[in-house]
Amino acid sequence: MEENVRYADQNRRYLHERGVRMLNVVSSPGAGKTTLLLRSISDLKDRLSISVIEGDQQTTRDAERIALTGIRVVQINTGKACHLDAQMVGRALRELDLANGGILFVENVGNLVCPADFDLGEEKRIVMLSVTEGDDKPLKYPNIFASSDMMVVTKMDLSPYVDFDVKTCILNAKRLKPSLEIILTSAKTREGLAQWYDWLCPEGSKVLHR
Amino acid sequence: MEENVRYADQNRRYLHERGVRMLNVVSSPGAGKTTLLLRSISDLKDRLSISVIEGDQQTTRDAERIALTGIRVVQINTGKACHLDAQMVGRALRELDLANGGILFVENVGNLVCPADFDLGEEKRIVMLSVTEGDDKPLKYPNIFASSDMMVVTKMDLSPYVDFDVKTCILNAKRLKPSLEIILTSAKTREGLAQWYDWLCPEGSKVLHR
Repeated sequence: MEENVRYADQNRRYLHERGVRMLNVVSSPGAGKTTLLLRSISDLKDRLSISVIEGDQQTTRDAERIALTGIRVVQINTGKACHLDAQMVGRALRELDLANGGILFVENVGNLVCPADFDLGEEKRIVMLSVTEGDDKPLKYPNIFASSDMMVVTKMDLSPYVDFDVKTCILNAKRLKPSLEIILTSAKTREGLAQWYDWLCPEGSKVLHR
Repeated sequence: MEENVRYADQNRRYLHERGVRMLNVVSSPGAGKTTLLLRSISDLKDRLSISVIEGDQQTTRDAERIALTGIRVVQINTGKACHLDAQMVGRALRELDLANGGILFVENVGNLVCPADFDLGEEKRIVMLSVTEGDDKPLKYPNIFASSDMMVVTKMDLSPYVDFDVKTCILNAKRLKPSLEIILTSAKTREGLAQWYDWLCPEGSKVLHR
């Protein structure tokens, strides 16, 4: 654990020197991380330098989907491990050989428990929660929600068909972390995407320049 | 790990002596484990002795929902741990003080990675996968699918609204484990429930007698 903190600090320094914002994206399996990243890349890649580190237990499927967009992506397979750690990410950073500025998304292994304790050196942690998973998930997996800066609710297009109370979900999440930012999205209907992009690219930030 | 195997064998002997079938239910967070268990309990409890061990990182919400049905339930909170282990289950078994026969469901922590390596002493392992998670999940989390005896696909009622190809999913899962049994269900529309109950209560089995 102490070793992880050391590697995370190393990554943070490395990224800071290059002006790259690293965002650690965590969620359950199938919450829609890759889909929202693909949509964001396709909408933003002309005005923003984006790269991705993909974490999966096995397979390179998500990395292949991302690579089709033409941006740089590095796959990490964690084998039996249920999360990325800062050392793995450090190795991927060297492989990516990032230029100045832009955003680096780290798509963590689909898991609401293990990634909570592992700082990767990210600037912000984003937890994604799909409406099909239920509004009680912040209460049941408090560590991951309390350690995140942003909660992106995904698949809002499915909310008419499931029992998901947005207000309850927000209340549950804010109770754990009052400063948690929240955006409601659907990659399908584009709900909330403008707000998501504004958050990714704050006005006047370096990230708007390639 | 060796210690876990020893405790698992102890649990298996204990359950065998009492003729109780323990089923270890694993899935992602929000795949619908509790909902399908609640539906099954309500449909079967008059002809079958059922009890439940609930595993959650925190909260007793699921155990409270189960307790409302009037059956016996014990909650285990795993804190920071991402899975149940055989020793925790052994303690819960002593608390439940099971009579002869019936089914004991163990609802594991919502996680597709960690529970794979931990034998709890169960007779069968059931992995639940909701259609909203995507048909590629067996490929991405192979250990948990390969270590299961039954895959229950849940939330089939949502399949018109999501990109989930049942055939692809079955193919992906069977490639990992040719003997894997598969049932497609919806707790909402009751699709597949009769088949699920037949599997739970094979004809002539002791479990039909209280």
